[in-house]
This record gives sequence, structure tokens and C-alpha cells, in this order.
Amino acid sequence: MKKKYTIGLDYGTLSGRGILADCENGEVIASAVKEYDHGVMDAELCAGRERLPAGWALEHPADYIAVLDSVVPALLRESGVDPREIIGIGIDFTACTILPVDENGVPLCETEAFRNRRNAYVKLWKHHGAQRYADRINRYLETRGLADSPRFGGKVSPELMLPKVLEMLDEDPEIYEAADAILEAGDWLTRVLTGDHTRSCSMAGYKAWWNDREGYPEEEFFTGIDRRLADFTGKKLAGRVTGVGEKAGTLSAEWAARLGLCAGTVVAPTIIDSHAGVPGSGVCTKEQLMLVLGTSSVMVGLSETPCSGSGILGGVKDAVVPGYYALESGLASVGDLFEWFVGRFVPPCLVTEAEEKGQNIHTLLSEKAARIRPGSSGLLALDWWNGNKTPFVDGELKGALIGLSLRTRPEEIYRALIESTAYGTRRILELYEENGLSVREIICSGGISLKNPLLMQIYADVLGKPLKVAASEQAAALGSAIYAALSAGAGKGGYDCYAEAVRNMSRVRDIVYEPDRDSHARYTEIYAVYKAYSEIMGSSSRGIMRRLSELQTE
Amino acid sequence: MKKKYTIGLDYGTLSGRGILADCENGEVIASAVKEYDHGVMDAELCAGRERLPAGWALEHPADYIAVLDSVVPALLRESGVDPREIIGIGIDFTACTILPVDENGVPLCETEAFRNRRNAYVKLWKHHGAQRYADRINRYLETRGLADSPRFGGKVSPELMLPKVLEMLDEDPEIYEAADAILEAGDWLTRVLTGDHTRSCSMAGYKAWWNDREGYPEEEFFTGIDRRLADFTGKKLAGRVTGVGEKAGTLSAEWAARLGLCAGTVVAPTIIDSHAGVPGSGVCTKEQLMLVLGTSSVMVGLSETPCSGSGILGGVKDAVVPGYYALESGLASVGDLFEWFVGRFVPPCLVTEAEEKGQNIHTLLSEKAARIRPGSSGLLALDWWNGNKTPFVDGELKGALIGLSLRTRPEEIYRALIESTAYGTRRILELYEENGLSVREIICSGGISLKNPLLMQIYADVLGKPLKVAASEQAAALGSAIYAALSAGAGKGGYDCYAEAVRNMSRVRDIVYEPDRDSHARYTEIYAVYKAYSEIMGSSSRGIMRRLSELQTE
Repeated sequence: MKKKYTIGLDYGTLSGRGILADCENGEVIASAVKEYDHGVMDAELCAGRERLPAGWALEHPADYIAVLDSVVPALLRESGVDPREIIGIGIDFTACTILPVDENGVPLCETEAFRNRRNAYVKLWKHHGAQRYADRINRYLETRGLADSPRFGGKVSPELMLPKVLEMLDEDPEIYEAADAILEAGDWLTRVLTGDHTRSCSMAGYKAWWNDREGYPEEEFFTGIDRRLADFTGKKLAGRVTGVGEKAGTLSAEWAARLGLCAGTVVAPTIIDSHAGVPGSGVCTKEQLMLVLGTSSVMVGLSETPCSGSGILGGVKDAVVPGYYALESGLASVGDLFEWFVGRFVPPCLVTEAEEKGQNIHTLLSEKAARIRPGSSGLLALDWWNGNKTPFVDGELKGALIGLSLRTRPEEIYRALIESTAYGTRRILELYEENGLSVREIICSGGISLKNPLLMQIYADVLGKPLKVAASEQAAALGSAIYAALSAGAGKGGYDCYAEAVRNMSRVRDIVYEPDRDSHARYTEIYAVYKAYSEIMGSSSRGIMRRLSELQTE
Repeated sequence: MKKKYTIGLDYGTLSGRGILADCENGEVIASAVKEYDHGVMDAELCAGRERLPAGWALEHPADYIAVLDSVVPALLRESGVDPREIIGIGIDFTACTILPVDENGVPLCETEAFRNRRNAYVKLWKHHGAQRYADRINRYLETRGLADSPRFGGKVSPELMLPKVLEMLDEDPEIYEAADAILEAGDWLTRVLTGDHTRSCSMAGYKAWWNDREGYPEEEFFTGIDRRLADFTGKKLAGRVTGVGEKAGTLSAEWAARLGLCAGTVVAPTIIDSHAGVPGSGVCTKEQLMLVLGTSSVMVGLSETPCSGSGILGGVKDAVVPGYYALESGLASVGDLFEWFVGRFVPPCLVTEAEEKGQNIHTLLSEKAARIRPGSSGLLALDWWNGNKTPFVDGELKGALIGLSLRTRPEEIYRALIESTAYGTRRILELYEENGLSVREIICSGGISLKNPLLMQIYADVLGKPLKVAASEQAAALGSAIYAALSAGAGKGGYDCYAEAVRNMSRVRDIVYEPDRDSHARYTEIYAVYKAYSEIMGSSSRGIMRRLSELQTE
């Protein structure tokens, strides 16, 4: 039998990337990337049409189409693969990243009537314009006694779908009216490619409160917030919710011709980009944890029971791995935190030393920090420079650094910052394990997992688990290619079984960071102090951090 | 009547400084300084005789004599004043800085028998070799139910006299035996100059638990610690305790000839160097506070009732200002803390900017920090980089910095560090006011009071009091000259009344830092958070900081 291939498309914040993978072994035959021409519009709408308010972050859907037009032909050119051997396309996308479209699926921002209206554009996942709508929903949940409901996961973030929609409804109701549907950008793409109206189970579940047992919340829930939401899920969110292994549809003749593929090629349901890393890094069982280490971190673990609350999302079965609830949380700053320190607080003598040694500052600081015995600096940090997701679900929480003395050196602080993110990670892992996981290995991906061996060893020592590193540097794109092979199915040369697909197509590197027993024991003692201190500083009743935030804005 | 003059000699940690002051108006006619040849011996004894253990800090008494021989003739030369018009000499000295002497007053370290024995040398105030003896005394106080006794001021510091003596007794009992007396170095100097055996009331009171009502603790108190201390106060500490306005004696013929002064010139009792700043900066009443701002800070306020505990010393009447108990406390790091930050955490871009502007880094950071509205950075620090004296009396406490975000800039931290020392100062001031002070103005001295107007304004705003700056840059030496004028008395052209002497001889500068009402109100809100947070972090029951220290040394 001839080799079969799938395409994985990974839509990030600034660019879309594609790979062509061999279904037999996951080998990446070709890859290509295309940056978005408009980038993130956070200051003005389309070069000067309008200044945007603070917190806004829009994108232009034409950029997503441009990725298809550029990347897919490039993959074909580079690989020389016969399009007939390409059995599926999988897409992962940032979420919640939504846009309103008309009955033909045309984005309203591309119609003459609405091209100058900011609410007609794609609201990117990190659009924070809708904070006050999130606040309104939180008050509503409070009055309805739903604040602790597992469905809503504690506290509603402005990054979810409903706050963004409420903002549209309030600021520019004509657009809401004119919208035939409001779509995740990923769902819009599968609709464009296939003509079928389906919704990603992962996106509906994690961003719009859908679950497999009850669907979306009832109409009455939404009209209680705003009467005009009466048709919200029935009309604006219409479309069959489609999970892993199902199909979003097949490639239309028009798009097949446009991209150089074959009509009828299977298109998999879109998946949230961070979730695509789960198969992409080889995670199959509840004994494995996926940890993406970038500017922030994402941790996905697999549970047999749903979990929601304390900032952990995991109420939807089969959305990421068949048979499991995928628990998702993470730290709001990891790489960002180290960059903050290195960019603003490293003195000239260290910069010069790094230059003389031809080293990156992180490498120099890591070398020095590696010589520090756990606990010996006396420092302890709380990793909340960008707020805390788990367990406090509080974006207003801030970082802390204690145990400072006149002898404290920069490399000690650098190490304390790394350790603080390891403690924060351990806190989440603990909560996952309380939910039935028994993690035996952690598979990491993301830039830091390749660039910072000190951090990897500290994580292994703090967590007491071996850390492995995904072989693919594009774990999300590879995950999308795996999902595409699952949607195509074994009959077409793909797979019917998730675990088989992942075992064949994903790999880890040779290096394993094994926990050192003594360091782990010592870190367990320090972690107890971290946990005690974080309870004091994080619980809102204590009020120290909260009061500082109030005073900051008063 | 001819103009009269006094000499003030200020013995610091590294040098001795002298001024010649006009008794009428305090004008400094001449000044001179001499560094100690041996400096602080903290690594080895007298260039190679012996390596010293960690924490040791010794000096050589010959260096103090060299100051007399150098500085006094220099003052005479520079001023051209007739020695007959010089009516008194006043000395201030660091304390507790002690040495053992033989029956002729010769330092044992200068005798052939003991010149190679480290316990025979001057143990400097900051000698920390005796920590375990301080611990032993603290346990003793505990078992005797004296731990909370106001006499012992809470917790015994290794810097006091008894721990240093116990160390000598334990390590080298022959020296203790051979010592005819154990003297504060300042008291040794007045004995050298006058031949009279007197003790400074300020030193005996603040460093050896003497007070005007009961004298030293009873013999039984000392023998309970070590039987060999039976003759401790009766013999080793013999000598009349002499207070402000009294005389230590008069200059011997021999020393008068040696220095070029007149025999019979009055020598005032020595005073602790930080206390000499009280008259030197013009503090007369309980409505005034003296604040010395240097690497650390010293705060002296005047109370009509004794006070001891929470790290505040103030159990001796008339030791500093007649009619008052002088309450003493301060912060263990002020200038040290800012130097720590500037030396280790200021990035190259700021260093370059300072160079381009021809500015000191502190000046540049101050300029930037001055634009930050109180509370707007969201930062809060605890000023315990070098431990906390008041209220927790705990050298193991460490600094903290909370409210950090990815937007936090160096100048915001710089300001937060300044503010933290202002809050620590406010905490002490509060405790003073609970003891009956009603401070209406604060008179500052020390390098920072002249160099950092931003700090001065922040202190005024946080404390809600006007801050003035002593006119003299040598407030301690001027204070010693004032004490000399008081000991000489009005009959000789000096003064009989402390307040009159101070009003005539001390001055403040024209600049007054007035508190801004809005900033003070805002800082009062933030101070409430500081106080709540410091209670959480400082009280030993909470244990967060304490546990970190334990883990650091385990």
C-alpha cells in the first residue's frame, strides 16, 4: 500500500503554520508558515480606520485564507507528494477567537455595510475589551447561585465567547442582528473548506459551556442576562458539534482546485491549538501529562471524571482524547516572567560577562543558578506576575518575592522565579491527581523545553516526575495532522484508534530529566511553605494582594 | 569675654573625626579626620598573626590614640585658636566596642603576654562572633522568666556587652582573669586622657543593662549564667557611671602637653555615637525626633517614661538629654538596601542613560520614581533585607516585595524600597507615640538626608510630619562638642542648660520637607496594608519567613 499523508494546520496568534506528515510514522515531510498581513489589530482598525479602545485585539479573516492559499501549495511543492495520497486536513486554532458571518458564511467585516465597524471583525482570544461584560456575567452567576457551578468553572474570563458577544450586542446591536451565525474562526475555516456547518466540540466545550450531556446552557439562562439573546444558541451558535475522530466535512471541489488537493479529502473538526499538542506530544493516558512551556504554560491531563473549578476546565468528554475528560489549566506567565527579569533587572556586569563568553543571558544566569542548592538562597516567589489561574482564578493577583537579603544575587532570583513556576505547576498537578490522574511522566513541548535544561531539571525535581520532551517542534501542527488521520479513518490509510495513531505518529526525544531524590525531598519541604504562603496571599479574604490592586487603581 | 571653644571627637567604625566648635553659635572653626591604620580586622588578626572566625570584627586601640595625636593638633593648627580658650573635650564612640585592660589601663592586646590572643583586642560593636553566647543568655532569660522584662529589651543581641564578655571567658579565660577592667573603648579613652575611672551612662545603660534606679543587674543574675562572673560588675565594670553635664575628669598634664592643650581642660563623659547626633541635630523636646539616615537608620525620641521592648531601648534617664528617657531604635538597612538594588539589579539601559545625562544612578532612578503616584505601582515591600529590629527583634527576618507584574519597572521597585523604609520608620514612630511622644518635627542627619530629596519627601508624606535637615554634616561630632560645653559649664564659658546649649550651637537648614496632605492620606491607606502584611510575615507563629531561614541553613 502506498504511503498516506495528512496536513496539519496550526493557526496561532501571529501566523499560520502547516506541515505534511507521514501517517505511518508521523515524519514531517514538509512545512511552511505564513504570517498574518494585518497581524493583531490592537491600536487601530485596518491601518487608520478607527483607533481601538484599550484591551481590544482584533484580526482580519482574510489573513486566515491567505495562510491556506500560501501554505498548502507550498507543502505540496516542497514534498512532491501526490495529492491523492493526502487523506485528510486537520486544523487547530486559537480560541475563543470569534467572528460574525452572514448566511453565506461571509464575514460581516468583509461586507460593504460593516467594514468600518470594529465589532464585525475577529475578536482574538486575548481581546480583553469585554472585561465589564465578564463582570456582568459573574454578577449574574452570583445572583443565580451558579457561581460555584462546575459548568462555569469558577469565574468567567473575558476571553470566553459570551462576554465578547455581549460586547457586540451592546456596542453595535445591528451587527448582532445581521449575523447569521457567530463562529469560532476555526469553525469558520472548516465551513469555508467543506461548506458544512459544524462546530468544534473542543471550542464549544471549553469556550461556550457546551457539554456532551446537556448541550449549551438553556435559552432562559441567556435571556436572563439579556433578552436579546433569545435566539443565541439556536441560531447564532447553530451547527452540529463534532468531536475527535468525526469529520467536519470533506473538501469542496472549488477549494480542492484552489489549493491543489483532491475534492472529498476529509477535513477534521477544528481543535483548540493548545489541545492539539496533546496527541502531538504523544499523550494517550491518564498517566501522562502534557506541559507546553512558552510565554505562559498549558497543562493538559486526562481524567475519567469531569472536573471544573479552581480555574481548571475539563467538563467535556472526548473533546481532546476519546474516552477522557481533558483537564486544562496552566500558569499565566512562565517565559514572560523570565524575560521580564532578564530584560529589566540584569546589571551591566552580567551582560558584559555573557557577551565575553558569547552566551545568551539566560544561559549565563542558568549556569550560575545551577550551582545553587535548593532552598539555600532563602528566597521564595509566588509566580503570579500575570495573575493566577489555578487555584485562585484571579487575574488581579500579583507576584511576590520574599526572603530577600543584602546578599541576594541576580542568579538567586532567577532560580527562585523558575522554582516558583515549578511550584505553581505542582499545585495544579496536585489538583489533577485529586481528580483521579496518577501522572507517571510529563511530556513537554514549547520553546523553553528545548532551551532551558536548568528549568527542566528543576521541574523534574519539584514535581518528582520524569520530564520528557516532544520530538516535534511543532507539536500542535503534528497533533492536527494526527486528528486528520483519525477523521480519515483506517479504511483510508489513517487510523480508527487514537492511541494507535499517537503511538505511531508522535515521538519524544532521547533526553529524560529524571528527578533527583534528595532535591525532590527538599523541594517538597519548600513547596509546603509555598503552598502555605500562597494560601495567605491568594485567598481573597486575606486581602493583602487584593487591597494593593484596589489602591493601584483608586 | 573672649570666645570659647570645645572639641568634639567622633569615633566611627573606620576613622575618628574631630571638630573645633565655637561655644556661642556652634560654628565649626576647624575639622580633621584620621583613618584607623588597622581598620576593622575581620579576616585576620594584625596582618597575618591568626585567621579570625566568621563574624569576628576587631580593632586595635593604638588606632584610637593615633586619632588623638593627629586630629587634635590639626584642629589647633587649622584654627589658630589659643588652647586656653578651649574649655572642653567631648567624645562619642561606637558601642558596644570593648576591650580588656590591666590595672594601669594598658590594653591587654598591647602587652607581650597577650598580643597574639584575639580575645585581648577591641571587639567592635558589629562583632558577631558571640551569637551563641547571646543565644545562651536568651535561653537563660527565658528560664528565669525575664524574657519580657523591659530591662533586657525583648531579646539580647550579640552586639551587647555580656555576650562579648562570655565569649572571652569561654574561649580564653586567662584574659578575663588578667583583665583588671573591661571597658567601652570610649571610656578607655577618657581614662587615658584624665586618669579617672568613669563609665559613660549612655554606654552602660544601653549596652550593659545599667540604669539610674538599680545600677547593673545583681551579681546573682550573672553567676546564674556563669559562676566565674561573680566579680563582673564589682570589678571588671568598676567605675562611677557619669551622665550628661557631668565630667569624666580633666585633661592630665602629660596628655595636655602631648596634644598641645591646657592641663585641666574638662573631658566630658563619652556618649554613644548615634546619641551624640541628638544635640548635634538640635533635638531638645519630646516633640522632636532625631533620624539619622545612613546605611541603616537610627531614631531617637525623648520620653518622660522609660520604654523597653519591641526592639526599642530606652530605660535610662538623663543618658542623652537631661530629664528624658531617650528611646532608640531604627531600621537595620536603609542606604544598604538602595545600594543593593542599584548595584545588582539596574539594567544597562539605565546605566547608559545616567551616563549620558551625567547623573548618578540614584539621581536618575529618583527622577523617574518621583513621577510615580503613591500606590500606583501596586508594589509593597517589607524593609527587612537586614532583619527587623522593631517590632519583631528578629535578625532572621528577610525582605519581601509583593504586587509584582510583568509591567513592573526598576524605578517602581526603587520607589517601593524607599517607601518600605518609610513604613518601617512609621511603625517605630507609632510605638514611640504610644509611649507618650507627640512628635511635631523630625530632624534628619546622615548622608541620605542631604543626597536624596525624593526619599525625604516620601518620608514626610508617609510620616505626615515635616522633615528638617541638621545644618552640620558632622552632627555627632558637633553633639560631642555641645556635651563638652555642658560638662565645662556656664562658669567656664560653656552651658549649664542642655536646651540652651543646643539652641545656640545647633542649627537646621532652610529646607523643610512638608507632608503633602493627599499623599499622606493615600500612604496611610497603604501603611495599613504594610502593617497587616508585616504582622503576617513577622510574627513567629506564622512561620513563613522563619521556615525559609531554617531551610536555608538545614
